[in-house]
Amino acid sequence: MFSHHRQVEYADTDMAGIVHYSEFFRYMESAEHAFLRSLGLSVSMDVGGRRISWPRVSCAFDFRKPLRFEDEFEIRLTIEKIGGKSVRFRADIMRNGEELASGRSTSVCCQMEPEGAMTAVAIPDDIRSKLEAAMGRSNE
Amino acid sequence: MFSHHRQVEYADTDMAGIVHYSEFFRYMESAEHAFLRSLGLSVSMDVGGRRISWPRVSCAFDFRKPLRFEDEFEIRLTIEKIGGKSVRFRADIMRNGEELASGRSTSVCCQMEPEGAMTAVAIPDDIRSKLEAAMGRSNE
Amino acid sequence: MFSHHRQVEYADTDMAGIVHYSEFFRYMESAEHAFLRSLGLSVSMDVGGRRISWPRVSCAFDFRKPLRFEDEFEIRLTIEKIGGKSVRFRADIMRNGEELASGRSTSVCCQMEPEGAMTAVAIPDDIRSKLEAAMGRSNE
Amino acid sequence: MFSHHRQVEYADTDMAGIVHYSEFFRYMESAEHAFLRSLGLSVSMDVGGRRISWPRVSCAFDFRKPLRFEDEFEIRLTIEKIGGKSVRFRADIMRNGEELASGRSTSVCCQMEPEGAMTAVAIPDDIRSKLEAAMGRSNE
Repeated sequence: MFSHHRQVEYADTDMAGIVHYSEFFRYMESAEHAFLRSLGLSVSMDVGGRRISWPRVSCAFDFRKPLRFEDEFEIRLTIEKIGGKSVRFRADIMRNGEELASGRSTSVCCQMEPEGAMTAVAIPDDIRSKLEAAMGRSNE
Repeated sequence: MFSHHRQVEYADTDMAGIVHYSEFFRYMESAEHAFLRSLGLSVSMDVGGRRISWPRVSCAFDFRKPLRFEDEFEIRLTIEKIGGKSVRFRADIMRNGEELASGRSTSVCCQMEPEGAMTAVAIPDDIRSKLEAAMGRSNE
Repeated sequence: MFSHHRQVEYADTDMAGIVHYSEFFRYMESAEHAFLRSLGLSVSMDVGGRRISWPRVSCAFDFRKPLRFEDEFEIRLTIEKIGGKSVRFRADIMRNGEELASGRSTSVCCQMEPEGAMTAVAIPDDIRSKLEAAMGRSNE
Repeated sequence: MFSHHRQVEYADTDMAGIVHYSEFFRYMESAEHAFLRSLGLSVSMDVGGRRISWPRVSCAFDFRKPLRFEDEFEIRLTIEKIGGKSVRFRADIMRNGEELASGRSTSVCCQMEPEGAMTAVAIPDDIRSKLEAAMGRSNE
């Protein structure tokens, strides 16, 4: 499990006085990217002359309790599955030990062309081995 | 089916040159709110002296193809279910007749207190009858 | 003067119940881009094999009254100045004939390289003539 | 001078591969709010039974160089002026000792009513004394 800490910012809130639901996807993403950095990777990086990135194919969130301005919270990120070309993350949003929301996100490993095309490719070996090692550790 | 038309704005895009995935939830929400307005309702309104709003309990999106800057697209919104206290919407994102993405969102009818508390309540009769009539029409 | 109409969306609001101040810059930008489209241009377009875009060098907003959810408003856009390599816009935010806020923004015409570099260049003739014609019309 | 450190997130970027200009206002705001917290204050707080907040009346940014994904940067915040009812901040965006952008923002101390009205009021004494002490320190 990878732990990422944040604090709610003013611009994240809406007129209901709580964090807007779309912001939770930004929170989940920030944890994913911090996790990749902790492995020496980046969500957008050159691998053997190819630009590799990870567009999403699906995502979801369940909300139990709201987050409010200046709340300090933790995103607990785990890898649920590593496929041939994709990775599925789970993110639990915790405040003071209480789970407020939980999300899932599946991204596909893609070769990005300069003109904008994206082609799904097998996860490069170096990235795969780092993700698998991290997934193993997260189950301990 | 309620149809809502938009065009991708520059600030919706990210460094991959496509619409950031969190923006699809804002698109879905804008269609839900336009739909409510078309019924003479609002997502945040006074009903019999109570402030009624609709915080979300779950949402999801599946992505097939990306949206890009200045793309004109349609959000096709349908009500999938009306419960005692909740409503579930489905939103299909269409561009030139092709489905790019589809989302779901479940909101709970809540009484909002001035100090910020939210209590789930039965959907007020006037709102329910309008939603049910619209749901019936959308199946025709 | 170019007129662009919008309606405040839920995600634009913050916990003070008003549109977050950073959103006004997105509103101003959407009017600028709609204006360019009305001239057959785009803020990011190929001109003679070069990718031309318009990063900003300065911007400002003065706020007199707030915008709230579902408010319908107008952005009145005028070109204040066309320089050799830059354009300065002014945007007045109007609701029911009342000016709520006014902004300014200066963008520089740049050649964008695939690897990310940006070099200021003279405004291409075709773009300049369209902007100057529009500027003349806006003073009538 | 109050120093606030951040890192550029993916969702902050746009299709030009740089941070969208509207995000700089969110960065400046996050530094202002962190500064207020460092004084034991909040941008939205109860003072003697009144809800005090600080809506903005003007803001501006000048941009010299862009920020990109995963850039680590510093926001150097100073108070330029404390008026009877308002405060003006300056924020310099620094990366590796180089100034990329600088912004200004003026906020007015307001009493916020539950129904949404905002009335400018004199800065409460306790808040003023903390701001003035910080302003003095920032000039050393």
